[in-house]
Amino acid sequence: MNTTIDDMDSDPTPEGQLTLQELAMPGDTNANGDIYGGWLMSKMDLAGSTTATQLAGGRVTTVAAGSMAFLRPVPVGSLVSCYTSVTEVGRSSIRVLVDVWLSRPGTGENYKVTEGAFVYVAIDDNGRTRQISG
Amino acid sequence: MNTTIDDMDSDPTPEGQLTLQELAMPGDTNANGDIYGGWLMSKMDLAGSTTATQLAGGRVTTVAAGSMAFLRPVPVGSLVSCYTSVTEVGRSSIRVLVDVWLSRPGTGENYKVTEGAFVYVAIDDNGRTRQISG
Amino acid sequence: MNTTIDDMDSDPTPEGQLTLQELAMPGDTNANGDIYGGWLMSKMDLAGSTTATQLAGGRVTTVAAGSMAFLRPVPVGSLVSCYTSVTEVGRSSIRVLVDVWLSRPGTGENYKVTEGAFVYVAIDDNGRTRQISG
Amino acid sequence: MNTTIDDMDSDPTPEGQLTLQELAMPGDTNANGDIYGGWLMSKMDLAGSTTATQLAGGRVTTVAAGSMAFLRPVPVGSLVSCYTSVTEVGRSSIRVLVDVWLSRPGTGENYKVTEGAFVYVAIDDNGRTRQISG
Amino acid sequence: MNTTIDDMDSDPTPEGQLTLQELAMPGDTNANGDIYGGWLMSKMDLAGSTTATQLAGGRVTTVAAGSMAFLRPVPVGSLVSCYTSVTEVGRSSIRVLVDVWLSRPGTGENYKVTEGAFVYVAIDDNGRTRQISG
Amino acid sequence: MNTTIDDMDSDPTPEGQLTLQELAMPGDTNANGDIYGGWLMSKMDLAGSTTATQLAGGRVTTVAAGSMAFLRPVPVGSLVSCYTSVTEVGRSSIRVLVDVWLSRPGTGENYKVTEGAFVYVAIDDNGRTRQISG
Repeated sequence: MNTTIDDMDSDPTPEGQLTLQELAMPGDTNANGDIYGGWLMSKMDLAGSTTATQLAGGRVTTVAAGSMAFLRPVPVGSLVSCYTSVTEVGRSSIRVLVDVWLSRPGTGENYKVTEGAFVYVAIDDNGRTRQISG
Repeated sequence: MNTTIDDMDSDPTPEGQLTLQELAMPGDTNANGDIYGGWLMSKMDLAGSTTATQLAGGRVTTVAAGSMAFLRPVPVGSLVSCYTSVTEVGRSSIRVLVDVWLSRPGTGENYKVTEGAFVYVAIDDNGRTRQISG
Repeated sequence: MNTTIDDMDSDPTPEGQLTLQELAMPGDTNANGDIYGGWLMSKMDLAGSTTATQLAGGRVTTVAAGSMAFLRPVPVGSLVSCYTSVTEVGRSSIRVLVDVWLSRPGTGENYKVTEGAFVYVAIDDNGRTRQISG
Repeated sequence: MNTTIDDMDSDPTPEGQLTLQELAMPGDTNANGDIYGGWLMSKMDLAGSTTATQLAGGRVTTVAAGSMAFLRPVPVGSLVSCYTSVTEVGRSSIRVLVDVWLSRPGTGENYKVTEGAFVYVAIDDNGRTRQISG
Repeated sequence: MNTTIDDMDSDPTPEGQLTLQELAMPGDTNANGDIYGGWLMSKMDLAGSTTATQLAGGRVTTVAAGSMAFLRPVPVGSLVSCYTSVTEVGRSSIRVLVDVWLSRPGTGENYKVTEGAFVYVAIDDNGRTRQISG
Repeated sequence: MNTTIDDMDSDPTPEGQLTLQELAMPGDTNANGDIYGGWLMSKMDLAGSTTATQLAGGRVTTVAAGSMAFLRPVPVGSLVSCYTSVTEVGRSSIRVLVDVWLSRPGTGENYKVTEGAFVYVAIDDNGRTRQISG
């Protein structure tokens, strides 16, 4: 989890399955007009939970997130892609690695911006932990 | 452009490249708690314009949209995928077909919800039509 | 449905009843800072569904949209007006024409930006098609 | 400005010009799932500033709002209409009365929910007070 | 309730308890790129209702707002703080004074922007007025 | 950074200065109607960057976030409070610990939900790293 910009540069392609892909819009910026780390984290969690929901066959909740490094800016208009891989499955919990890549339509730029691990727990309709079906 | 639900059922897989993929959230619903056609149209236009921007090497504006049929509901929590194909390129204009598929995480459901054509024109910084580079 | 900018110029006044009228805000823009076609389509669908709901005496869902042309830009700060006319009523379906006009407060500018037809079907609480009351 | 529910009932029709008309959506609700007073105030200010901008021929800023009473709930799905009348014009300031009516598509219900006065001052590009042109 | 900029300057510190504190973001601006009075009113009502909900031990609804003056602009990036004091408690109603202060991170600026009184009524799950417990 | 629910229970009070305090609204929920971890992370980053901006006397960007545990649900209507403490200051970088507490107006509930460390770097108007003034 101690990713550096050099590790990132040595990643030639995204890892995992493309789960979410969104345009960073002006309404998503902070006071400087920049897309901020927390906005990316929010999308990463949604991507991870989508994958965990698929595997768990129903509702999950986020219980942990690993450390992350944000080494390059995300300009408005970027296409932000979250790739997910399931790295561990327990009785009730699922660990998903989320790899975030950015491309800028019209420029040919395409690079990794961050990665992070998220842990989800399967829950029932009352919010209680349940075993993963299967 | 006269798509029926039977045509859609005979489409076994999405056509084009996956351009946008988003979760339909509670904040996206209409007064009935449903994801509405106009929300889908908004995402389809953004998907088409992303593809047109890539091809035009810069800013574009939407000038037309073809007819569309919305034959199945889009529940909150659906993963909405917009696939795009460029179908025509003129001096300044680009026609993009957008194919929209839905999957429901945790249920295995996966089906096409609509398709539509969008036409974009390349514009310069002053909003004037420009020729597509190359 | 093949509207050109000349047809639009020959429309001296909006057709139908004013159903929605909103300000285009900075949070509504695309990455270029422009109000985009898809945002207009989203509002047009809401306007059409409001009119269809009134006529159907309850919940409706969008099943189709006709083609549209967007021939003039919509700057941030524009007042966007959706006028609606019911053009056809079936056993369960309602066709609404939506005429979109723009005015720019403080400038005197006022012109038509697009028009489009939307078809709605009346549904019950379970989402099943129902006959229109009366 | 001391409006009671009885005064409101004796108002047979909205006063002023229809300036904004929006649907109250689920994404606009407070934690109880209700449309709250502050959301209405926000729309009233936008309606008033639209009218003041038209009269001032350019940018204005809100400097004051009068007292308001909110005597009936605004359910999700309501069509909220803001009617505006200019009640006073000074060298740089404009007073606008905003009358808010609600209708519920599909039910026939239509009633006044609140009214309030807003005062705007015309400003230049640097945010300094300017005289109203003319 | 007739606050002038001089009264405000003579207020050395906020009155009441800090209830809401938010950053004013680009997605919150009006067409001029300014944070507008109505946005502040919306936050003030949420702050007041939070305090009234605490005191009423459950759901409340806004029934009135007193007059307000907005004498200084709120730039994007400002930290907006709503301080609340309960000024009156009736059988079912609660009056809350909301004091709004602004600070601009990185500049040292810190000043009062407005104040206003809001009245809430405790309601039950059916929206009917209830007595405040205790 | 390996916080457990027991560590959290032994924290009698929030650490640091109250920087952001917001209501969790229905428009902030995921498809299950829950406030999700990523929404909290987004607010934590904004809180940390506010504190870093104050200390850096200007613009900063998020470069890293430490691991986090989310051990209790955040219901809609919760008041979410982000407390911040600067834990390290380098030539250009600032490390901020963000402690998140939740209270539920009207219930008396008040507990810690998560904590996390964020690292910011001071940047100039061109987005280049700058030394922290002073």
